[in-house]
Amino acid sequence: MYFSIELKFNLNSGIGILKINIYDMNKFIVLLWLLYSGCCIAQPVLKKDSIQLRNIYTTALVEGQSYTYIDYLSNQIGSRISGSLQEKRTVEWGVKTLKSIGATAVRKEPVTVPKWTRGVTEFAYIESQAGTTTNVPICALVGSVATPLGGIKAEVIRVNSIQGLREIGSAAITGKIVFFNAVMDAHQIDPFEAHKAIETLYNYGAKEAAKFGAVGVIIRTANLVLDDIPHTGVVRYEDTPNTDKIPVAALSTNGADLLSGMLALDQKTRFFFNMNCKNWKAVSSFNVIGELKGSETPNQYITIAATLDSWDIGDGSQSDGAALAQAIESIRILKAIGYAPKHTIRIVLLADGVQSQQGFKAYNQSITSKKEKQLLFLYNNTGGFTPRAFGVTAKDAFKKQLQGWFDSFQSYPIDGFTTNTSVLKFDTECPMVRLKTDPQRYFEICRSSLDTFKAINTREVALGAAAMTSVLYLMDNN
Amino acid sequence: MYFSIELKFNLNSGIGILKINIYDMNKFIVLLWLLYSGCCIAQPVLKKDSIQLRNIYTTALVEGQSYTYIDYLSNQIGSRISGSLQEKRTVEWGVKTLKSIGATAVRKEPVTVPKWTRGVTEFAYIESQAGTTTNVPICALVGSVATPLGGIKAEVIRVNSIQGLREIGSAAITGKIVFFNAVMDAHQIDPFEAHKAIETLYNYGAKEAAKFGAVGVIIRTANLVLDDIPHTGVVRYEDTPNTDKIPVAALSTNGADLLSGMLALDQKTRFFFNMNCKNWKAVSSFNVIGELKGSETPNQYITIAATLDSWDIGDGSQSDGAALAQAIESIRILKAIGYAPKHTIRIVLLADGVQSQQGFKAYNQSITSKKEKQLLFLYNNTGGFTPRAFGVTAKDAFKKQLQGWFDSFQSYPIDGFTTNTSVLKFDTECPMVRLKTDPQRYFEICRSSLDTFKAINTREVALGAAAMTSVLYLMDNN
Repeated sequence: MYFSIELKFNLNSGIGILKINIYDMNKFIVLLWLLYSGCCIAQPVLKKDSIQLRNIYTTALVEGQSYTYIDYLSNQIGSRISGSLQEKRTVEWGVKTLKSIGATAVRKEPVTVPKWTRGVTEFAYIESQAGTTTNVPICALVGSVATPLGGIKAEVIRVNSIQGLREIGSAAITGKIVFFNAVMDAHQIDPFEAHKAIETLYNYGAKEAAKFGAVGVIIRTANLVLDDIPHTGVVRYEDTPNTDKIPVAALSTNGADLLSGMLALDQKTRFFFNMNCKNWKAVSSFNVIGELKGSETPNQYITIAATLDSWDIGDGSQSDGAALAQAIESIRILKAIGYAPKHTIRIVLLADGVQSQQGFKAYNQSITSKKEKQLLFLYNNTGGFTPRAFGVTAKDAFKKQLQGWFDSFQSYPIDGFTTNTSVLKFDTECPMVRLKTDPQRYFEICRSSLDTFKAINTREVALGAAAMTSVLYLMDNN
Repeated sequence: MYFSIELKFNLNSGIGILKINIYDMNKFIVLLWLLYSGCCIAQPVLKKDSIQLRNIYTTALVEGQSYTYIDYLSNQIGSRISGSLQEKRTVEWGVKTLKSIGATAVRKEPVTVPKWTRGVTEFAYIESQAGTTTNVPICALVGSVATPLGGIKAEVIRVNSIQGLREIGSAAITGKIVFFNAVMDAHQIDPFEAHKAIETLYNYGAKEAAKFGAVGVIIRTANLVLDDIPHTGVVRYEDTPNTDKIPVAALSTNGADLLSGMLALDQKTRFFFNMNCKNWKAVSSFNVIGELKGSETPNQYITIAATLDSWDIGDGSQSDGAALAQAIESIRILKAIGYAPKHTIRIVLLADGVQSQQGFKAYNQSITSKKEKQLLFLYNNTGGFTPRAFGVTAKDAFKKQLQGWFDSFQSYPIDGFTTNTSVLKFDTECPMVRLKTDPQRYFEICRSSLDTFKAINTREVALGAAAMTSVLYLMDNN
């Protein structure tokens, strides 16, 4: 007499079978006990979540498509600012791609978006009193008005903050170009923290300087690296009357140091810049939406979102082509591992992520008016770098639930769940989780001509996609 | 009557003084109580370690020199393989730089190192039976013998492992070029894990293939990315007689896919390669050593080490110029923040990190024979990417001590202390800690022509230097 035991392992990519024949009853009992102990020890490792997370990561790393998607977005479409032909192409590509990976209810929902064009390449120089000039690299901020035809030349008043304008006062500012030369605070570990003060200048510097009679604004580029690359951003004139809007451009960090140095030698140093960018009437665009319908509670939604537009400089590979690719990839991965969600998993490719978040606002309005139950809104707008953590905006109970998932990520590794600092706000109850990627390279690359496909590392992007897919899975299955 | 209280804050970069006059005894008591409570609450934040770590990070990020050091190593010296003029220049630069930052007892200790030269650029092509050829990019492994004059052409036998050679056997291998086409395992989260199998082929593939009569070895490059860049490595012939040594080169991943595809179509496909690299007699070099003498127990040593040579392709910016710069920078930072160590902090720039670790072996012998008490050996050989963790080789008690430091790093952030997997071994008791940087980009860049100064991000390198300096400080002060 003998016993035969067949052990079947359902592992990442295949099934292993171990067959054992036993001819001795004592040995059989020992074996049973060993198997039992083994299972007890192995349980944390073999439990369903761990296996599925491993499946997700393997799919992303071994046969991932994020890199291919970004390649298409960057090299076939290119930068895709709202209102551009490239943005229209991205909408159509989004619809086609979502259908091709098996998303259902794929649709476009209309959104009105701003349209701004950069025009011909900007041009700027610093001019000494003696009339010698040095060219410096600038770029208009998205939303800026043009300079007067032929450009504008004026003396320069240097300040570091909006408060600085008030201290100097109108008399010294009127008729001049305001030069905000705030240096990004290198001592911050997280460059996004250091960026906040500079972003205020990008957004509101022109509005405030205009109040003091400035004729133009030049801002030191938000970059921790000294180089010749100007980085764009968004200007918000808000309630400034059209006639009072003044042109605003970013100047490379090296250019800013040069201008600063020349002003220190001679306050009469002048700055010239020429831009023929233009704000057009708002135009029609779309949010692109698709779903994996839930098998148990299809009217409860877990959403992954990404921005389908990009900055118009570079080709938008890191900001935010990577996140767009990762969002689509997360749906593809769930299909690839054969996961059937309990709740409906929805993907939303949002229009106008760069300028005024009209796509997000439209989506917010839609779920509020439909009173849809939203379990999670997951997104990434920190580029396709190595994933480090998740930022969370939610009630404490939800945060506790997330903390419980943390163990699942120990092997991958994600540092943890931290506070979110997103500008996005829902009118309705909806926990938000944002992937936080390693932030050190973001401001060197993004929003500039350096943000091209070359800046993408396929492993880093794949790991981000896997981390996001894992959150979708954990939310759905827990 | 009144009381005057002067609060003195010794902060990162300056001293703040707050003077308070109090005219009322009750208020004074309340204030005293508030101050006491405040101090209790503030203690975890203000405690000495936290302040010093903040000082270290600020110094590294705001006025760091790592980037400047790498710039010099990469762009002024260039790649610096053992036995080269550039290596000699690095030794002299090391001595000069250590003296200039205030290290004492700066000295050179002789080490005999291997000398190998690449010769003229390697050349290779795949040849079909019909005689059409396709050029493919290869590079000799460091230590390889040359091909016969004019190159070598032979049929190709493809295997994935050394075990594969045994399965095929001598009859099928004799006279052929062995092509190891093991694909790096993308599913591993840590590429260094995936690298182990490939490194075995790099190190021992030629030795083993020679036993079966192969005339040359071509190895698929250790790289998770498909591109046209071959990456070098080290071949270890060990006891193979000189007459039996066969040439070995790495082939780019795209080249390997092409060769593999052509072999699938036609097993008679031939491979040609020409290399005139050369192993010379061993030559003299040096370890460069400097110290910050301890004020309390100067005969106990905390060592930070780095490799002063590099691979000969590219300019050795990431591998391991970054770590060399960081080691020097850590000493500079300790001086810059005015820290006087209790134990002697020693920096050792090791000769021959690439080929056979002769510098490490000499240093090991030196501390063993002198019976020096070694508290820590700290190093980094994973490039200048964002620091993620520390790998530790030590007894459990020491590991526990490190774990106690972990809280200090929460703000920076370091993920934790993990197991080390270093090849370096001391004969004497000496805990080893290795910085582990984010590993995703290492194999795309390092040991290839892509490893140039352009691949360096100043923030990532500075954070690594700060993390290492923090460990030196914590070890010395705890």
